[in-house]
Amino acid sequence: MKLYSYFRSSASYRVRIALNLKNLPYDYVPVHLLRDGGEQFHEAYRKLNPDAIVPTLVDNGDVLQQSLAIIEYLDETHPLPPLLPASPSDRAYVRAVALQIACDIHPLNNLRVLKYLKKELGVSDEAKNAWYRHWIEAGFAALETHLARNARTGALCFGDTPTLADVCLVPQVFNAQRFEIDVSVYPTIQRIYTCASQIDAFARAAPGVQPDAE
Amino acid sequence: MKLYSYFRSSASYRVRIALNLKNLPYDYVPVHLLRDGGEQFHEAYRKLNPDAIVPTLVDNGDVLQQSLAIIEYLDETHPLPPLLPASPSDRAYVRAVALQIACDIHPLNNLRVLKYLKKELGVSDEAKNAWYRHWIEAGFAALETHLARNARTGALCFGDTPTLADVCLVPQVFNAQRFEIDVSVYPTIQRIYTCASQIDAFARAAPGVQPDAE
Repeated sequence: MKLYSYFRSSASYRVRIALNLKNLPYDYVPVHLLRDGGEQFHEAYRKLNPDAIVPTLVDNGDVLQQSLAIIEYLDETHPLPPLLPASPSDRAYVRAVALQIACDIHPLNNLRVLKYLKKELGVSDEAKNAWYRHWIEAGFAALETHLARNARTGALCFGDTPTLADVCLVPQVFNAQRFEIDVSVYPTIQRIYTCASQIDAFARAAPGVQPDAE
Repeated sequence: MKLYSYFRSSASYRVRIALNLKNLPYDYVPVHLLRDGGEQFHEAYRKLNPDAIVPTLVDNGDVLQQSLAIIEYLDETHPLPPLLPASPSDRAYVRAVALQIACDIHPLNNLRVLKYLKKELGVSDEAKNAWYRHWIEAGFAALETHLARNARTGALCFGDTPTLADVCLVPQVFNAQRFEIDVSVYPTIQRIYTCASQIDAFARAAPGVQPDAE
């Protein structure tokens, strides 16, 4: 398997965690999102992924896009250990936590969105950072309520074994910390983050230890 | 089953299509996103859904959030007709199309985001509409490339029977048309939209025919 990834991309980070949890070795192909006008926009990469975003996973000639679709694929093709619980109701809960991060928080703070705010709308760095914090804080407040009140929550988002929910939560908290957001205001999120990021599969997926880390 | 929905919400629209495709009857509970400061922010609704967004589906006491998680749940609990193909590779493709819309286009044009642009960043109506169009046009251009070049594309996104991909595509095109975006520039998207929106399950889910339509 070949993973096109950027060390700081949280969508790439999610897939790296999933590959590690499944014990699947892969070749790391760095795509630098800032160098040369963004390598994701280069012809060769766009042929592979017309969305011009990372990650892309190539497996047996199959070209896969969208981090959550890739992770569900890995879970279907390599069922052990499972990244989703067994019952439809529990699966829906875990997927909802993942999607709350992947749809309601992360897309608003993507590099291309921050660029648009600055270049097209001419907002100040201060207003851009306030925007970034706003969507993380609104999203984390809701997520904290979900996690704190749900009997499914254990050491991790769903009991004590890693699921798709933790795979999305850890990169999002990592981003929040980069932007100096005080995560201790969300004690359940912080507790789960601390626990998950010590698991080897998560630690090996961290941005700082990737081949293209700066 | 009980669906908390707003007629114009595309995430609600997706779930309505899925429920109809599965032939599942449900009670429609309107949540008006603009009235009384937004009914989604009212205490009673927030208890059900701390994210303060629609839809929420209640099934046998289970409270389900996030449209894609709800639709996967419906597909697991009521497998016929399936909304995802059989092979992991095809499933990943269909999910990727759905997620490209649900993560890369729709979140940027949500009501709460447009409100923030206007209220917090003070952007003009013109700049707000340009933002709206920008993310749809960027997303549709990439999606058109995916659909036009992929051998899986038929009368619909995946062959000739409705999948999760069409369930996401139709509400997004509906939104684009509301904002007067010329969808004919994306011939495959337009062709699939025209075909899908004539299917009874899609037609009955359209905003204009919901109990809370204005």
